[in-house]
Amino acid sequence: MQFATLGIGDRQAIAVPGSDGRVRGRFIDDPACPGSLESLVAGGAEALAAAGRALAAAPEINEAEAVFLPPLRAPGKIICVGLNYAAHSAESGFTPPSYPTIFARFASSLVGHGAPIIRPRQSDQLDFEGEFVAVIGRAGRDIPRHSALDHVVGYSLFNDASIRDYQFRTPQWTVGKTFDATGAFGPWLVTADTLPPGCAGLRLQTRLNGETVQDASTDDLIFDVATLVSLLSEVCTLECGDIIVTGTPAGVGFARKPPLWMQPGDVCEVAMEGLGTLRNGVTAATG
Amino acid sequence: MQFATLGIGDRQAIAVPGSDGRVRGRFIDDPACPGSLESLVAGGAEALAAAGRALAAAPEINEAEAVFLPPLRAPGKIICVGLNYAAHSAESGFTPPSYPTIFARFASSLVGHGAPIIRPRQSDQLDFEGEFVAVIGRAGRDIPRHSALDHVVGYSLFNDASIRDYQFRTPQWTVGKTFDATGAFGPWLVTADTLPPGCAGLRLQTRLNGETVQDASTDDLIFDVATLVSLLSEVCTLECGDIIVTGTPAGVGFARKPPLWMQPGDVCEVAMEGLGTLRNGVTAATG
Repeated sequence: MQFATLGIGDRQAIAVPGSDGRVRGRFIDDPACPGSLESLVAGGAEALAAAGRALAAAPEINEAEAVFLPPLRAPGKIICVGLNYAAHSAESGFTPPSYPTIFARFASSLVGHGAPIIRPRQSDQLDFEGEFVAVIGRAGRDIPRHSALDHVVGYSLFNDASIRDYQFRTPQWTVGKTFDATGAFGPWLVTADTLPPGCAGLRLQTRLNGETVQDASTDDLIFDVATLVSLLSEVCTLECGDIIVTGTPAGVGFARKPPLWMQPGDVCEVAMEGLGTLRNGVTAATG
Repeated sequence: MQFATLGIGDRQAIAVPGSDGRVRGRFIDDPACPGSLESLVAGGAEALAAAGRALAAAPEINEAEAVFLPPLRAPGKIICVGLNYAAHSAESGFTPPSYPTIFARFASSLVGHGAPIIRPRQSDQLDFEGEFVAVIGRAGRDIPRHSALDHVVGYSLFNDASIRDYQFRTPQWTVGKTFDATGAFGPWLVTADTLPPGCAGLRLQTRLNGETVQDASTDDLIFDVATLVSLLSEVCTLECGDIIVTGTPAGVGFARKPPLWMQPGDVCEVAMEGLGTLRNGVTAATG
């Protein structure tokens, strides 16, 4: 089951793809709406399943009037995992880690599917990072690995676009990872029941202007989703709506010779089996 | 003017110190309450001033029944600045930075004044970091330095308690900075009008079991509050309720020989002129 958060004018809607291929949904402020995706995620798999059934019979949405927003607008935690594919770790000049490398980005950096990723005026080192996201749907602390996937309600895609000179300007990467309009998230939140456990064995690809620049199997993750959930929950309480951005495979632009930066006018896509395609153009900041 | 967010049973209240030294306030869900501290901060200095006047005449709160919560429970951004005092940068083995070192902690790690800082079972390397906090009360992007302080509505104190082995286990510090119940924040949000601009020239001290372990002037900040606001706003939109945890001076435990770790039973205080004293005991995690 797939869910999107849409913006239509200044209102928000929750939508599903209908069996006829048309998108159906309801405005969040419609009393007949089952709730925002935030509230449904907090209700867990059962709430999402019931909402999906209700929305499948909801009115059709005029897609020409709608834009995709991040499925969750302001996750309580955006937990990003660095160096989580061995080949990417090597191309970045790091040895493969024995413990997850964690950093954060702020929700103000998020954009939805179809919205532009903005290259800031301070830098031309805008790089792509295709990733998939695990969404927490059941809170927990000290979650054992064997039951960790019970806490993941769904998955989505992410382009963890990075301003590399800012990322490596100081010992900590956050500033290069949290420029406004650099974290593309969506298009759909796909419930876990329709995917292999932990999204294992799926092919993750990033394409820049149609050319494949990253191509890996999620089996290459050093720390898989269950391990990440378990280890992170030893540190902090995972809460409903928190997202884990699981890391990017090899092929990023800064590790190439010469480097390959995203330019205004480019189109970057992140695709994974079962999760669809997250597509974003690139524009230059104005002003 | 000073404001606190209190917990009384399972309800929250906003409170001010009355002129008679007693704490006065109202439950947030009381229709006579001017609002939560989050909503008042979003209303800026004028909303806070009006609320302060109203709360000064509010009923007295029985302090024995109340606990301090973090003044803001879930800031949209908790922006932590590392290495922002030259002497601390040197004791940590870094050269003084030419650009702020930024990392994040998650709101799930926050505790209020008087609540225990919890030493996790995985580590005994629990370290103190006394800091002061700037609270954003007017949103902005690309804020020039000369008007940056107009965006800061108030200040508070923070103990950025750190699990050092986790902090330095990977290239990124976040995991060692975001264990549950390690970020002490409060007790008061003090409005900017009662303090020197940017909190310049004030004495910041940390005491462990009564012994002074950090003692510096905020004049020693490498990047002062106005500079931080301006530089951060070049990266991301600063939003009302975002907090900037401005960095810790020299004297932290891990840089001492032998190291000085906080132990269960210890009491750690962070104090600054005009902001009061943030006091937290240390307990060991159970289970």
